[in-house]
This record gives sequence, C-alpha cells and structure tokens, in this order.
Amino acid sequence: MRNTNRQWRLVSYPEGMPTENNWAMSQSSIPQPGDDEMLVRAIYLDVAPYMRGRISPQQNYAAGVGPGDLMVGGAIGEVVQSNDPSYKQGDIVVSDAFSWQDFGVVKPAWVRRIDADVAPLPCWMDFLGMNGATAYFGLVGAAEMKPGDTVVISAAAGSVGQIAGQIAKLAGCRAIAITSSEKKIAWCRELGYDDGINYRTESDLPAAIARVCPDGVDVYFDNTAGPILDAVLQNLAPHARITVCGTVSLADRFDKPDIGERFMRRILVSRARIQGFLVGDYQHHYQEAWTRLLNWYRTGTLKCEYDIVEGFENTPKAFLRLLTSQNLGKQLVKVDQDT
Amino acid sequence: MRNTNRQWRLVSYPEGMPTENNWAMSQSSIPQPGDDEMLVRAIYLDVAPYMRGRISPQQNYAAGVGPGDLMVGGAIGEVVQSNDPSYKQGDIVVSDAFSWQDFGVVKPAWVRRIDADVAPLPCWMDFLGMNGATAYFGLVGAAEMKPGDTVVISAAAGSVGQIAGQIAKLAGCRAIAITSSEKKIAWCRELGYDDGINYRTESDLPAAIARVCPDGVDVYFDNTAGPILDAVLQNLAPHARITVCGTVSLADRFDKPDIGERFMRRILVSRARIQGFLVGDYQHHYQEAWTRLLNWYRTGTLKCEYDIVEGFENTPKAFLRLLTSQNLGKQLVKVDQDT
Repeated sequence: MRNTNRQWRLVSYPEGMPTENNWAMSQSSIPQPGDDEMLVRAIYLDVAPYMRGRISPQQNYAAGVGPGDLMVGGAIGEVVQSNDPSYKQGDIVVSDAFSWQDFGVVKPAWVRRIDADVAPLPCWMDFLGMNGATAYFGLVGAAEMKPGDTVVISAAAGSVGQIAGQIAKLAGCRAIAITSSEKKIAWCRELGYDDGINYRTESDLPAAIARVCPDGVDVYFDNTAGPILDAVLQNLAPHARITVCGTVSLADRFDKPDIGERFMRRILVSRARIQGFLVGDYQHHYQEAWTRLLNWYRTGTLKCEYDIVEGFENTPKAFLRLLTSQNLGKQLVKVDQDT
Repeated sequence: MRNTNRQWRLVSYPEGMPTENNWAMSQSSIPQPGDDEMLVRAIYLDVAPYMRGRISPQQNYAAGVGPGDLMVGGAIGEVVQSNDPSYKQGDIVVSDAFSWQDFGVVKPAWVRRIDADVAPLPCWMDFLGMNGATAYFGLVGAAEMKPGDTVVISAAAGSVGQIAGQIAKLAGCRAIAITSSEKKIAWCRELGYDDGINYRTESDLPAAIARVCPDGVDVYFDNTAGPILDAVLQNLAPHARITVCGTVSLADRFDKPDIGERFMRRILVSRARIQGFLVGDYQHHYQEAWTRLLNWYRTGTLKCEYDIVEGFENTPKAFLRLLTSQNLGKQLVKVDQDT
C-alpha cells in the first residue's frame, strides 16, 4: 500500500475551457481517522460535469472549490481503518464527498456500503448512484414523463443519458439521442434509443430534430444547454417539458454571459415547462430509483458502458475528456493502488 | 340605431410596433342571423395584448388575422335579434369571439349572458372574464403560488396585473408591482401591492429587484418578457416559479429573433420552473375563478380600474395605447351607438 497521499488541488479558476494546468498534484501524509471516522483508499474516482460549476467563482448550488483547495469528487473505495463499529476494514463503500485523492477520512453518514456481488463496482457510481437517480427523477419527477411521449436526450451516450434513454423506453416513450459521433449513436441504438442525431455533423439542427420528431418534442432532458437546447425549443410539442439538468456545452464560457436567441413566444404558445433540476431535491426518494434500476439490471434490461481512464495522475485528463465529449458512457478513473 | 356595420380590417402585418395604418375602417350592411344565431350590437369592444400575436404571420396558439381579414376581439353587447329560444332581444352578453365591428352574428355557444345588476358591464370583460381567469390560474394554477411567496408582477397596473396583485395579497403573499410610471405605482399601492418598481426610471433593474426582494423572487407573473424578465431571472429564489403569460415588451420586434442573455445556469441552480401559460387550458375551471373574484368584488376586497376610450373609430388607437403602456387598468373601447 502507498505510504503517501496524492491529491489534486485547484491552482486557478479556468478561463473558458479548463486545462490540466488548472490543477496541480501534491503529496502529503496519509490522514488519520478520528472517533467515529474511517480511512478509505480510493479504487475509482468520479469525474462528472457538475464539477465544472464548482471550479468557478459564479454562484452555484453548492460551495465552490477555490484556488488551493482540494478538488471535490466522489469515489468508490475500500475501508483501510475504521473507528466506527458499523464499518470494518475491507468494506467497500461509495461516497459523493471524497475529493481527488488516494486516501480520504470520511464519516459514516457520507458513505454507502456496496456489494460487488450485486453489481460490479463502477455501477455503484453510475446507475446505483447519482447518475441513476438523476436520470430517473429528471424524467419521472421533473419532466413528468408519460407513455407515448417523444423524449429527446442530449449527451445521450454519457453517464446520465445512457440510463435516461433506457428508462424512457421502459416507460413506453420514443427516445431520441443527441450526441457527438456515429459511434455513440450506434451505442445509443444498442441501448434501445429509437433514433439519433449527431449534432456535430448536422448543418441544421432544428431541421434535424423536426425530421426525427415530426410531432414535436414532448420531453427534453437537457444535459448541455446551448445550440442543442435552442434547436429543441424550435420543435416543442404542446405542453412540452424540459428538464434542465446540465449545461456542459457552456463549459468553455462558463463565466461569461450566454447570449443567443430566447424563445419566450414559443414557450408561451406551446405552454412548455422548463424545470431547473438538481437531483439532491429527491434525496429522500433515491431508493425508489435504485431498486427499480437494479431490478432492470438484474433482468438484463438495463445496460451500461463505462469509460475508465487508468491512473490517478490522469484524473484531470479524464475530466477534460468528459467536457470535450470524448467519453462513451460513464467516465471514471481507476486508481493505481501500488505505485 | 345605425343602419350600417362599421368594421376594422387588417390591411398589413405590422413591421415592428403596429401603427393605426395597419388597419382600415370600412362599412357594410348589417348581417342577418341564421337559425339558432343572434345579432349582437357592440357596447364595449375589447383590446388586449394577445391581439399582437394574432396580427403576425408567426406561429401562434390560435389562427391569425391576415391582411384583409376582420380584426379579432371580444365584446360586450346587446342582443338585437335572436333566432335562439334561450336569448331574447335586449339581453346583454359578452363574447370573446366578436371582432372589431358594430354588429356581429354569434352563436349561443360563443356568448355568456351577463347582468349589470351583479357588476357593471366592463367588469364582465375584466375580472369576470378572461383577465380574471388569467390572473387567478396564472398564479394559483401555473405558478402554484403559496402563502409567504414574494410575487413579482409585470404590467402590474394593466388588466391582468391589477387583479393578479390583489389575488397575491389575498393569498398571503408579498406583491411587487413592476410598471411604467409613478402614477401606476400609486394605483398599485392603492390595490394593496406592497412595493413598486418603475422600470422606466430605474437605471439598474436587476439591482432594483434585489433591493425590493432581498430574499429573491418566488413567483414571477410575466406579462412582458424582455428586460424585466431578464432582471427577475437574476433574482430567483430557490424553486422560483415563472408564469409566462405575455410578451408585450416584444410588441415592436415580434417577428424578429429576441436576442439576449439566457440564464440557464441560474434556472438550474435555483431549480426554477418556467411555465408557458394560456388561460384556455383552464376553461373547464373558469367558474371557480369567477365565483371567487365576484365574492371579493361584492365585499369590496377587489378593486378595478378601467381605461375607456370613446368611439369605435378609436379602436386601433386604444390598442396602441395598450402596447405602449399608456393605459391604467383594463383598456376598453366604448362604442358610440347612435352616430
């Protein structure tokens, strides 16, 4: 086992698209858990689009990471030492509050015990974690998805998108993927998406959506904002519902005004509903989502793809893969434990 | 009684802000009602912001008025001749489907019988008509207003705004008027609004809203879109709800893209809900609103102001008064019956 703790700290707020130089890796001694705490060694580190919002001085829904601060992030890890009677050495846990580091001291309230016999470890940071709850409640809760809806999902081959498309199909909807490559569209079709649009090669995105959704878009699960949202707003069905889950297309202009066309008349005329969405508002209902997703997984109905970058030192790289749409499926970092 | 029927027809689609020249008045013979129809003579003609959307080739929620067509509009009138047993000569009726003319042939399904002993005639085109239902369901339905909410209303001294502010107060909310003059703010305070902002004299509208709503805006009843909406979006309380009821600030650029800042991060972070709203979706519930509004009116709780332009020939002028914020209270045209 390592005898130092590697940590990624933010060096500077990004200007535009983040670069690796916005973080620096340092080493420190392995921390000691206090009473009722435990020491956890990371096996997988999470990288996710929400982190873009954290490394900005802009107002956000959660406290930000400032220059010099340890970078936030969840992890799957192994309990190395426990001062809490309910956890013991060797237990595998997942935590959304871990940070980009080898070792973290965590409290029992911040972790869930997980079981690799129920589902492989990465699943617990995916459909059995925030991503699954986000996909489920973003559609079932915020968008009030109904059978027969045409459901359009952006970043459709990403962590949330790949789950959301499958839930939409299970719910009797038509699911349309918007994503960035033919390879990703092929994966979305494997998952069950009815059709896909490559926003990078379509010269007229509103027309492409109109072609694929001739009766309009009933539900739009928005992970991107920007031009994809604009194109959907020009194709709303009456009483359309939009879940504003992420804004990853703004990653390179996060702290600048987002100037473009507003579509207030279309929103009015179609009586559309645009709902800002944070999964944390559904935290008391997570188990509902996870129970259903696990049942679908066990019966082979739910499929997932993981995009795993090897090596702690590549954590910022993995995050940048995500922001530039290079990942297919849930992006994780596998921590090399013995170097 | 007149022996000809004056009619206002659209001559051309407006480019930017409509002008009187977009309509022309013509005369024709008085129409004859068919079986089960009746002939109604207008007493008051309605002019309302929704009409801006009708005189545009843009897609709208209802059929548009093209060049050469009779101009749409509601009216309060007197039955002159009836071929339907349920109505007789002298009955007073209100109809949302009448048009800008002296005489109209209407079917019983298009009218409601009204009673001047219950409330003066203009009230039936105001709080006992679409405006009352719009104010009530825009807040109680679309915005799901709750006691304690800070409710901001634009075009606050207008037909819908003056009712909405009073309903918000009755519901235990704090009501903030945004309007275009000190005189209108004074009227809003008489109605019970807690505070008012004159958007024409405030140099920094977002800061003005922040000053008046230090805990943010819970509900925004949007009659305007444009800069007032932009300013509110920078002051959202968590879980804010916005009813998109009208876009009158776009009246002079109705057919051009509305370019400006989008606030998707703020919508996400505050989990705001933006709900496009058409009162017609609540038509099966209108009586609920009207019964309550009439009770409040009878007990002196509900006040209303009317801005009545005299003379059929001034109908386009009255409509333009409205689009340029010159009216205080519900704008109507009183038809001169004997000239």
